[in-house]
Amino acid sequence: MGTKTNPGNYFEDFALGQIIQHATPRTIRGGDISLYTALYGSRFALGSSDTFARSVGLPSAPIDDLLAFHVVFGKTVPDVSLNAIANLGYANGRFHQPVYTGDTLTTSSEVIGLKENSNGKTGVVYVRSTGTNQRDETVLEYIRWVMVRKRDEASPPPTPQVPELPDAVSLDQLIVPAELTLVGYDDVAAGSPHRWDDYEAGEKIDHVDGMTVEEAEHMMATRLYQNTAKVHFNQHTEEHGRFGRRLIYGGHIISLARALSFNGLANACRIVAVNGGRHVAPTFAGDTIYAWSEVLECNELPGRKDVGALRIRTLAVKNSSCESFPDKGNDGNYEAGIVLDFDYTVLMPRRG
Amino acid sequence: MGTKTNPGNYFEDFALGQIIQHATPRTIRGGDISLYTALYGSRFALGSSDTFARSVGLPSAPIDDLLAFHVVFGKTVPDVSLNAIANLGYANGRFHQPVYTGDTLTTSSEVIGLKENSNGKTGVVYVRSTGTNQRDETVLEYIRWVMVRKRDEASPPPTPQVPELPDAVSLDQLIVPAELTLVGYDDVAAGSPHRWDDYEAGEKIDHVDGMTVEEAEHMMATRLYQNTAKVHFNQHTEEHGRFGRRLIYGGHIISLARALSFNGLANACRIVAVNGGRHVAPTFAGDTIYAWSEVLECNELPGRKDVGALRIRTLAVKNSSCESFPDKGNDGNYEAGIVLDFDYTVLMPRRG
Amino acid sequence: MGTKTNPGNYFEDFALGQIIQHATPRTIRGGDISLYTALYGSRFALGSSDTFARSVGLPSAPIDDLLAFHVVFGKTVPDVSLNAIANLGYANGRFHQPVYTGDTLTTSSEVIGLKENSNGKTGVVYVRSTGTNQRDETVLEYIRWVMVRKRDEASPPPTPQVPELPDAVSLDQLIVPAELTLVGYDDVAAGSPHRWDDYEAGEKIDHVDGMTVEEAEHMMATRLYQNTAKVHFNQHTEEHGRFGRRLIYGGHIISLARALSFNGLANACRIVAVNGGRHVAPTFAGDTIYAWSEVLECNELPGRKDVGALRIRTLAVKNSSCESFPDKGNDGNYEAGIVLDFDYTVLMPRRG
Repeated sequence: MGTKTNPGNYFEDFALGQIIQHATPRTIRGGDISLYTALYGSRFALGSSDTFARSVGLPSAPIDDLLAFHVVFGKTVPDVSLNAIANLGYANGRFHQPVYTGDTLTTSSEVIGLKENSNGKTGVVYVRSTGTNQRDETVLEYIRWVMVRKRDEASPPPTPQVPELPDAVSLDQLIVPAELTLVGYDDVAAGSPHRWDDYEAGEKIDHVDGMTVEEAEHMMATRLYQNTAKVHFNQHTEEHGRFGRRLIYGGHIISLARALSFNGLANACRIVAVNGGRHVAPTFAGDTIYAWSEVLECNELPGRKDVGALRIRTLAVKNSSCESFPDKGNDGNYEAGIVLDFDYTVLMPRRG
Repeated sequence: MGTKTNPGNYFEDFALGQIIQHATPRTIRGGDISLYTALYGSRFALGSSDTFARSVGLPSAPIDDLLAFHVVFGKTVPDVSLNAIANLGYANGRFHQPVYTGDTLTTSSEVIGLKENSNGKTGVVYVRSTGTNQRDETVLEYIRWVMVRKRDEASPPPTPQVPELPDAVSLDQLIVPAELTLVGYDDVAAGSPHRWDDYEAGEKIDHVDGMTVEEAEHMMATRLYQNTAKVHFNQHTEEHGRFGRRLIYGGHIISLARALSFNGLANACRIVAVNGGRHVAPTFAGDTIYAWSEVLECNELPGRKDVGALRIRTLAVKNSSCESFPDKGNDGNYEAGIVLDFDYTVLMPRRG
Repeated sequence: MGTKTNPGNYFEDFALGQIIQHATPRTIRGGDISLYTALYGSRFALGSSDTFARSVGLPSAPIDDLLAFHVVFGKTVPDVSLNAIANLGYANGRFHQPVYTGDTLTTSSEVIGLKENSNGKTGVVYVRSTGTNQRDETVLEYIRWVMVRKRDEASPPPTPQVPELPDAVSLDQLIVPAELTLVGYDDVAAGSPHRWDDYEAGEKIDHVDGMTVEEAEHMMATRLYQNTAKVHFNQHTEEHGRFGRRLIYGGHIISLARALSFNGLANACRIVAVNGGRHVAPTFAGDTIYAWSEVLECNELPGRKDVGALRIRTLAVKNSSCESFPDKGNDGNYEAGIVLDFDYTVLMPRRG
């Protein structure tokens, strides 16, 4: 007999090189696309339309790259972050195969780093998580590090091992889906005349629109991803918690910011890398999310005239418009209201 | 470089005869049907059941006619009404091909009328919008006119041109889907014994039930339609706006009223025309919507014994039951609480 | 002419042996699975993954057993319980064929018992409701009894007839889906190492997690099931009603409790019987639902080494954790906070 409920892993439970096969394979349905649209209002043509997808060489509209990310990520929560105190960062996220309805996603993680904190109560766990489809093809992978409680403060610390993390996914590591060709890309259908050639490093774009989040929305989203982190769902305990309220899943804000970024980046048709990301401050139901982006790099892709890469940094801000481009100060502190600083790389059609 | 965000069109940007191809082709998924059901509770058998649809000659259950309308309409917002002050009316709406899952919808609009207002600050734009599927078949079309801001008050007015608008779509303009035959129509499955023959002009029906609307619901609906009108989503700005709150998309109320009308009009299986419509007053989250209908006309359809047309006027009322059939008074003013006056034509099985 | 709206049936309208064919056949879509996941966060691998379903012999992931139940149940509301005062109980619920996307469900009910109450104002109606797919295969059946208003207190009472109801579905009445084989059941994918062999009668499991319910969520769920009971949707009338608020559909709580029970019963892969169920107290938006379960019986199934049956009793509790296993006292009264006492039987893989 004994307890049958999942207590989650504590810091001592992780070992360097350990591979965790996460539970709950998840088949993607057309309904996931509809719900994602209803939750964020995404308008990128590639994910909205089978006909558009076919015009650029794909068999049908792939699901939103971030929906794939959230589903893959959600599976890691019961094993990796149920006893986490903080989600510290992302690095080296790469998108491989597009995900289509009917695909079944699973996730496994490898422990690639461990370091106990000096307080002896917690430690940092680094994992490389990989999402795989039913043909064992990688759909995406990323590194995440989280601060996890120790079960027992007296247990001895592991030999510290901190992986080297790149500032950004290097150009030669970016994956353009094999069939994708943007030669016949339809700007009118996509909703913007602005192509890769029109952007330049340092350019800042205020995405203008704001979106207020409701409790029902972020909880439905987070459950859709089968993410079980307790802080998002339980007002009965959270009202006595640190914030007095349910915390919104950070990925919900990433998706909102990406959807808002359509207004200015409509042709950023595919995310190919997550270089890094930081949830700067918590968000709650009732907050209105705005976003702005800075173009960090404009890169050609080897052998391609139809498509280029833009490295983008998108900041999400709550309850304040982004006209003034609120940012991190020289002292390293973020201006009030900033909730997300997300560094990623997208594909965009070139003039050819 | 320059701004990459969409500022929307101002009154000066429209020219008579101009054709606008709207962005964001949208493939319809089974999930759209599920979400539409979850949002409105629609029970019309034709849209609920593939077996029922096949029993009346269709290949499978078409999506709700109003879901098709909202998707087609949503695409026009970024080009037509982003700078609109008011949505003034609809006319001459006709439904052509039913829409099925897997269909991809696009919308184009033709500017068919322009008239600057005497204040010199705004003008009225008339557009005929046409929704098309992936086979270039028209799925629906309608005329809409909106009041739009001028960018510059000093710009010269266009030659005024106001299209002639019919009071109602004429009988010979109604389209019965080619395959549809109601000979074997199953009243029991459909939920009502009342057929076309049982209705008469002047008849009033209180649809009895009321439905309270939540913020999460109308926002999810409006995003599902990829409708980007800002007033529906942003509490941070709307709290300082005219109403102090987010405004519910008028189409959400049309869909609620239609779903409520099942109780009394269960066999109104297909909308074939929108003759006109007026959003009489705004609605907000927390409002409870009731509806009643008046039968305006009962028309035979040429060459058909299986199906007839009913011209219906459905009024939606907030926070008050419709037992007393609240209406427009002789002075042309609507009774308090009325939020929608919608004039449309439906198909209904005949006794044969 | 005459009224066209559905007044529902009153006690006098039911006759022993009467068969009611309920309206609104409903085709199940992939979107129903997505929405169900978004509403409850269900993680049972069988319903989540086509690949997992195929590994146990099914053609694809069936929809959640309770989603099938709610859809079948919803159809009975307009005929059976529109004028009901109370939903008194369930018995003898049996699940036959799994339901897949593309299946179309219909429901019929037989009146199997009638008993007027001594007050002469109400009576109890017993119905056996049967859900059927498009091949006329039974998908599930159950007995329900409800207290219904009389239309006219003066109408004579029927001869009382109360059906004999089993305490539980007997073992030989349980149906294991024909193709299902748990020989190759994957514990890792399913998320728990605990199989049928590891449970014992009397064992109690606190499912730990809590889930707060929002108005938008329970209303979307209840509409998804096309359940039209007025008390769930209309704040305008309910604010003057017994509770001052919209009441949450009892089935929503059953589904939440089942989803929460994953944490401790992850391998309870299929519900085969509903032995009984009682909605002990009402729930409202803002309530946080917790659950715990007691194993009532562990039964082998004739001729099967791969799968066994567990009879489970799951209690849902609002706004209080279940650490102390709140229960019915010896006096027959339930401890405060308990909202559901649900007795059902599940299949679980054996060690073989």
